[in-house]
Amino acid sequence: MLIDIVLDAVGSDKAPEPEIRGAIRACRNLPVRVHLVGPEAELRDLLDEHLEHEHLENQPLDNEDQRIFIVNATERIGMDEKAASAVRSKKDSSMRVGLKMVREGKAAGFVTAGNTGAAMATAKMVLGALAGVDRPALTTIMPTSKANPCVLLDVGANVDCKATNLEQFAVMGEIYSRSVLKIENPRVGLLDIGEEESKGNDLTREAFPLLKALPINFIGNVEGRDIFNGHCDVVICDGFIGNVALKTTEGASRLMRDLLREALTSTVTAKVGALLSRQAFNAFRRKLDYTEYGGAPLLGLRGVCIIGHGSSNDNAIYNGIRVAAEFAQAKVNSGIEATLRAS
Amino acid sequence: MLIDIVLDAVGSDKAPEPEIRGAIRACRNLPVRVHLVGPEAELRDLLDEHLEHEHLENQPLDNEDQRIFIVNATERIGMDEKAASAVRSKKDSSMRVGLKMVREGKAAGFVTAGNTGAAMATAKMVLGALAGVDRPALTTIMPTSKANPCVLLDVGANVDCKATNLEQFAVMGEIYSRSVLKIENPRVGLLDIGEEESKGNDLTREAFPLLKALPINFIGNVEGRDIFNGHCDVVICDGFIGNVALKTTEGASRLMRDLLREALTSTVTAKVGALLSRQAFNAFRRKLDYTEYGGAPLLGLRGVCIIGHGSSNDNAIYNGIRVAAEFAQAKVNSGIEATLRAS
Repeated sequence: MLIDIVLDAVGSDKAPEPEIRGAIRACRNLPVRVHLVGPEAELRDLLDEHLEHEHLENQPLDNEDQRIFIVNATERIGMDEKAASAVRSKKDSSMRVGLKMVREGKAAGFVTAGNTGAAMATAKMVLGALAGVDRPALTTIMPTSKANPCVLLDVGANVDCKATNLEQFAVMGEIYSRSVLKIENPRVGLLDIGEEESKGNDLTREAFPLLKALPINFIGNVEGRDIFNGHCDVVICDGFIGNVALKTTEGASRLMRDLLREALTSTVTAKVGALLSRQAFNAFRRKLDYTEYGGAPLLGLRGVCIIGHGSSNDNAIYNGIRVAAEFAQAKVNSGIEATLRAS
Repeated sequence: MLIDIVLDAVGSDKAPEPEIRGAIRACRNLPVRVHLVGPEAELRDLLDEHLEHEHLENQPLDNEDQRIFIVNATERIGMDEKAASAVRSKKDSSMRVGLKMVREGKAAGFVTAGNTGAAMATAKMVLGALAGVDRPALTTIMPTSKANPCVLLDVGANVDCKATNLEQFAVMGEIYSRSVLKIENPRVGLLDIGEEESKGNDLTREAFPLLKALPINFIGNVEGRDIFNGHCDVVICDGFIGNVALKTTEGASRLMRDLLREALTSTVTAKVGALLSRQAFNAFRRKLDYTEYGGAPLLGLRGVCIIGHGSSNDNAIYNGIRVAAEFAQAKVNSGIEATLRAS
């Protein structure tokens, strides 16, 4: 059985090229049907061109006219537009049209590499939250020094969270780690500034007993470094904190790349040093780049919504579609509702 | 004129060796007198041994009996002790004895590489806060990709800050950057999750206009990555946020070191790769290691208190003494009081 995924065809910075290529690759390798949403005529021409190219270079796609579809949407929300006003004014945006298809049951999930704020706002408006979820959470998958990646949420959808929000995030992140990332009995930590239960701020001290009472493997407070050292599989925090952690990581890794380049070009000849530092840094970036994990899922919605980075390439789009399909198949949402109902 | 600095001789993990060596080096190179606080008899033997060694290996220290002194303190607060109870129960700890000397005007500043929580609590109790300062702030100096380092505060002394706390941190950080780090007209940013004034949580939205009204070069909201890219000289945040940012940076840089080692040993021969990665990473660590900047100043106290990392070596201790002397000479504290009185 094929899973229907809606793809915002005008999301990424270089759209729609990466979207079309990613969609074709997904149809070739995954049990999915992809619905590209955007300006119909333009997309039709480009898609035909790419499919023709595929016919010449590779195997033609099996039943291609039953695997890739185009859905018309006349408006596009730009990367720099303010989310609130764009969502209000653009009634026929690719995001709104695509998410409506999920709401109406025509597709199992939505993928976009567009404006994160607008995607979150549109998804909340069109899909609404799951029963028991007060605020959906933006989730990223961070690399660790061990085999397991670490699920970090919330990373920016909600600031000034209440303890019950963190409790719900813990349930959502745990199920995502278990069902989609296939981590057995995920270790869930509360991001704090010390390990003892008494440490932290008002929010974390209030959230601690709530997380402890959940039917999950709660390992207590963890610190910023535990996101990366493999000591836990899920890290829970307020969206302000998570966003600062994410962007601090980005800044520190860029600085490290620059210093690394400098250090290597001063130890070996400049040319060899530059080559080595590029290779070494790319290995790190590949591991850090969350598009490799298929983008950031927005958890807690009545539906599946994956938000990729604006710089997404074919591969990131492909992974976004893959993760959306896995997310839909894993019955994450019914699991979240059942757990929240019981607790 | 010589500046009197009190040094906790039993602070660091390997104390008192790094403390004694660092103190001798400071007396050789800086206009300071150092008062080593700790178990008198033991310190006397070790100091004599080291001074004798100096006589043999190097020039003897000029007027050494008027440059290095030993002050007896019978108790030591361990790294893993709970700050609150250790401060209460150990009346004759090296920290309390040393900080009392600062309070009594016998020394201009105190330096320790011991238990951070205990040092903060003791300093607040013994020295008290400056007029106009509600809560002193722990401050770190972060490396950037440009020439200027970035002052980040608070990094853990205060959670659940009020907007007025952030306002005071901004005044303190700005003066520290200007007076001690010699940055001209430091650019001060408020750590947030978006650049527009309307972005952020309740705390940052309330703090924004307060910072804007200060007689400082406030550049508005900045994001996590701006700590490292040289776009600002001072970054202001709640202590919970700053602590998470600091520890996330530590975790990300360790992960990057591991991946770098892996990447380099797979591109070149294992031996060369290991060597290159060590050199490259050490260059980064040196830049990241705040002991190079002399440890973390606790700003807003009636006195000077510098807290170094537990793993401090001779060099870190030396830098701690240097920074304490510069801090005392720069009249940072009277500047903070004057600015807060005026605003």
